[in-house]
Amino acid sequence: MSNPSAAMIVIGDEILSGRTRDANMHHLAGALTEKGIDLREVRVVSDDPGAIADAVTALRSRFDHVFTTGGIGPTHDDITADCVAAAFGVHVGVRDDARALLQAHYDRSGQDLNQARLRMARIPDGAVLIDNPISTAPGFSLENVHVMAGVPNIFQAMLAGLLPRLTGGAPLLSQTLRVERGEGDIAGPFAALAEEFTDLSFGSYPFTHNGIYGSNLVVRGTDASRLDAAMVRLSEVFA
Amino acid sequence: MSNPSAAMIVIGDEILSGRTRDANMHHLAGALTEKGIDLREVRVVSDDPGAIADAVTALRSRFDHVFTTGGIGPTHDDITADCVAAAFGVHVGVRDDARALLQAHYDRSGQDLNQARLRMARIPDGAVLIDNPISTAPGFSLENVHVMAGVPNIFQAMLAGLLPRLTGGAPLLSQTLRVERGEGDIAGPFAALAEEFTDLSFGSYPFTHNGIYGSNLVVRGTDASRLDAAMVRLSEVFA
Repeated sequence: MSNPSAAMIVIGDEILSGRTRDANMHHLAGALTEKGIDLREVRVVSDDPGAIADAVTALRSRFDHVFTTGGIGPTHDDITADCVAAAFGVHVGVRDDARALLQAHYDRSGQDLNQARLRMARIPDGAVLIDNPISTAPGFSLENVHVMAGVPNIFQAMLAGLLPRLTGGAPLLSQTLRVERGEGDIAGPFAALAEEFTDLSFGSYPFTHNGIYGSNLVVRGTDASRLDAAMVRLSEVFA
Repeated sequence: MSNPSAAMIVIGDEILSGRTRDANMHHLAGALTEKGIDLREVRVVSDDPGAIADAVTALRSRFDHVFTTGGIGPTHDDITADCVAAAFGVHVGVRDDARALLQAHYDRSGQDLNQARLRMARIPDGAVLIDNPISTAPGFSLENVHVMAGVPNIFQAMLAGLLPRLTGGAPLLSQTLRVERGEGDIAGPFAALAEEFTDLSFGSYPFTHNGIYGSNLVVRGTDASRLDAAMVRLSEVFA
């Protein structure tokens, strides 16, 4: 039985312009690997309604889960909820439970729940809220699309609350052998080993460090004993 | 006249599994912004022939340029050249000029140009080589698809050689005002300002730092004097 599959949509002009370095992809990738959900594709798209809706439509039918980050705040460029609703063809509007969460939050801090903040209570029909323990404004899951904040600490907190609701599979394990030889020398025997262990995946990730050419040989799979067996063979071949 | 558009394809299971943090997207985004080429989408795909070819096919017709990173080394998991050739429906094989480059390189270092290394001379028919001043094995441009290495210092060197061949547009400029107020307070006047300057784009990027909520208000455009004018208004409104 194979693991559930997933894709991610990172929404943000600020990443495509090079102003900001995305931090959420790496965090999600690690968390899903641990959970046994296979992240198969990531798309970074601009703050453009068509681009966001197209990505949601393309990915939600191909993967078991789609995770989005960014664009759910109170400013005019926060359009993710509308785009996701459009992709599903459902209505989006201020929802009472989300409004009540925000009202209580701003009452506590003595701030006004103004029109801009109320945008954060706009939730597509049929969605389930995702808790935001940092700044209250919730994310949401609409069927298999999970919409979360782009600010890294809020994203991470939302994801921590969401993941226990999802069914995972066998965690993907990996082991690495660092070899200080050029990839061209190791490619032949490495490919032969990959053919010995067809239930595992073998990747070679070259590096140069202080003038030394080398490669990290990575073996991945879900069966720890098979990984151990492959690492024994790798060590023999590249000792 | 609008700037040329671009997409990027990052090829690598090691990024999707969370083992490695991609560094090339941020570098390419910054370099293209400076060159006046608009990066509109990035896809991270796995080391899977169908996924790579599908991404190339989908993006090369929609954007002026497509930049790929990863999967052009000598090991069995280096399949990018084959996938790009398949997407174009052209033949791929060892090319004499690429082989000569590699032969000279390995002769100099006293190493053998073995079968694995010869894989790096496999170039799709009709492609133009991209120089690799670090480790010789070339990248290539096939029409509007530019295929480069995944190792960051090699990718950066290839890109530096490639960019002067491409026609850019007006560099996208940006200016930022950091405001230590919650986004909910600034959203209304910020949206109003965005409507005053419809030739510029206005983005709000919230942060929390040491318990302070704030936002970086970013204005982008190609006309420096318009940016200056917008920043004057921003400063007035959020003084």
